Amino acid sequence: MTAFGFTLLGRDGAARRGRVATAHGTVETPAFMPVGTAGTVKGMLPDAVAETGAEIVLGNTYHLMLRPGAERVERLGGLHRMMGWERPILTDSGGYQVMSLTGLRDLSEKGVTFRSHIDGSTHELTPERSIDIQRMLDADISMALDECTPHPATHAETESSLGLSMRWAARSKAAFTARPGYGLFGIVQGGTYLDLRARSVADLLAIGFDGYAIGGLAVGEGQAEMFRVLDHTAPLLPEDRPRYLMGVGTSADLVGAVARGIDMFDCVMPTRSGRTGQAFTRRGKVNLRNARHMDDPRPLDQECRCPACKKFSRAYLHHLHRAEEMLGPILLTWHNLTYYQDLMAAMRAAIEAGRFTEFGAAFHEEQERGDIEPLGTTDG
Amino acid sequence: MTAFGFTLLGRDGAARRGRVATAHGTVETPAFMPVGTAGTVKGMLPDAVAETGAEIVLGNTYHLMLRPGAERVERLGGLHRMMGWERPILTDSGGYQVMSLTGLRDLSEKGVTFRSHIDGSTHELTPERSIDIQRMLDADISMALDECTPHPATHAETESSLGLSMRWAARSKAAFTARPGYGLFGIVQGGTYLDLRARSVADLLAIGFDGYAIGGLAVGEGQAEMFRVLDHTAPLLPEDRPRYLMGVGTSADLVGAVARGIDMFDCVMPTRSGRTGQAFTRRGKVNLRNARHMDDPRPLDQECRCPACKKFSRAYLHHLHRAEEMLGPILLTWHNLTYYQDLMAAMRAAIEAGRFTEFGAAFHEEQERGDIEPLGTTDG
Repeated sequence: MTAFGFTLLGRDGAARRGRVATAHGTVETPAFMPVGTAGTVKGMLPDAVAETGAEIVLGNTYHLMLRPGAERVERLGGLHRMMGWERPILTDSGGYQVMSLTGLRDLSEKGVTFRSHIDGSTHELTPERSIDIQRMLDADISMALDECTPHPATHAETESSLGLSMRWAARSKAAFTARPGYGLFGIVQGGTYLDLRARSVADLLAIGFDGYAIGGLAVGEGQAEMFRVLDHTAPLLPEDRPRYLMGVGTSADLVGAVARGIDMFDCVMPTRSGRTGQAFTRRGKVNLRNARHMDDPRPLDQECRCPACKKFSRAYLHHLHRAEEMLGPILLTWHNLTYYQDLMAAMRAAIEAGRFTEFGAAFHEEQERGDIEPLGTTDG
Repeated sequence: MTAFGFTLLGRDGAARRGRVATAHGTVETPAFMPVGTAGTVKGMLPDAVAETGAEIVLGNTYHLMLRPGAERVERLGGLHRMMGWERPILTDSGGYQVMSLTGLRDLSEKGVTFRSHIDGSTHELTPERSIDIQRMLDADISMALDECTPHPATHAETESSLGLSMRWAARSKAAFTARPGYGLFGIVQGGTYLDLRARSVADLLAIGFDGYAIGGLAVGEGQAEMFRVLDHTAPLLPEDRPRYLMGVGTSADLVGAVARGIDMFDCVMPTRSGRTGQAFTRRGKVNLRNARHMDDPRPLDQECRCPACKKFSRAYLHHLHRAEEMLGPILLTWHNLTYYQDLMAAMRAAIEAGRFTEFGAAFHEEQERGDIEPLGTTDG
């Protein structure tokens, strides 16, 4: 079986072109991971997810441990087999959802006790339990359990939270059973305090992980602050390990983060926005619920290869979303994921060609040009 | 362009094997039409609908006239182009939905005035308007407007309602513009009164239609009553025109109605039940929400060719429906439509082989055998 690993194939400035090898295949980086919270990328068959160009998806430990349950997923042959996705899967640790979705929780050195948002039942998540759940899910990439520091937080609050996260990181590493093709990532915390980010990197390097995630960003600090932290933090990370920016983001966030040396991303934005009628395109955001699309026979984006753009009109997409037909979310999810994957592919090509700076400039120029021109009024 | 028409290819007892030719292609009969109420078979891309084996879908005049509007659909090139379905489409007249979905309505000789269930706006549907809407939708098969007689109704009530429906049928025929490849069907009413059914057939034959539908059944009278009406009514219809039993039904209804000479069907059952976790199989109904499927790694039906059965377990389908994930309704809709289409294909083959009686007996025997055996308990 393949050893887990990262190959740095090339560089253009700080931007990196690489490849992650896992037990279920390889992932070309920079890569975007669609979110498949409860064992499905919402509204998409696995074949459709693969058609968008995705090579890896993310599963949520919190949701899966509650329903259908990690032990049950293991009995069913693991998450890949259960959901019919035979390519790589990364699972988060569950920590973020425990903090954001459960009202009643009790945090201690040992771990966190919380009530399920589904049925109110009580559960405990410790570093050891999180790693064990991720093993049962058969995740190619497991994440260490950490505490997501709230934003804003003082330096003292952030430092205290960081200390707990680093002790949990060490326990996560100790709990992780090495298996060929499987990897464990540590998560850099420290909020917007650069000294704490540096300390967190040093602590994680001392423990040693197969990859390094940057957490606690895109929590309200704004893109400029996020980029400032990345400018400082990414260069501290080892060249020979993948770097994963968690929960990010808009297409402009992705382009800016790749320019700063990030290799992997996940975000609910393309899927969640697709369900509410919002499309991401090379010409910026388009809200298909807007009445201006009601009679528009043109495709959402004539240059896009997805079924929503190849086979249907803006007027029809508008109709589907107004009528709350399932096909509306299905088609816009498909479109948004295709847009994200094609953006990643274009970034990979630009890095290979040594033209990433030009790519970034052209990307921003086109985004700012705005959506396609209104229909002419001359033919009625 | 193809002329609209019906070819009777063969017979086995009263069961008929035929072919309907339309402007958008041919339909092998007996045929089941999936319901695409608002310009989409809920949760299914058009390619997926075709993969199930469907050759024709049904669109609802009532829903489409309100949203997106018949004139808008016409400007967008018709319903086929708007929804990306280039095969035949049949539209109903809108009458049934006006009666069943709108609380406020005013019925007169001229037509029916009603309030939209979407925004409360007032609309009028007359035979002439219904036929004109169906022309704008570009329906290959249009249906005459009729009044759906409530069930139960007295002989006098049914006779009075039938009179109005027959006068509307004549006006529908007068309003229909003949075009190559396009047809208009009349609808036999008369409730469960055989004399009124006979009178309705005679009235419609005097007007002359391209096909004949039997309406006002499957409204609560029970399968035995429905079959009694079919036994009496179907033989009165001309051999050289297709016969369409509206809004029917269960798989047993379909087998029994084909045995009585029916060629076409539509029903929301496979799609609507699919959305609520109910699957139809050769072994009867299976409710995937039931806890007994929670740990079952077996497919819903190992002999079925649909993605739900080919790629996923009962446990996963159960999980998707419990977690209210979109993929649950998508997969079970796909399965149910595949089951219905494969049943129709099997009936067509049985008629061709002159073995329809044996087919029906085997069908009932297998339905009654019940769902697949419970998992053994010997291996835990």
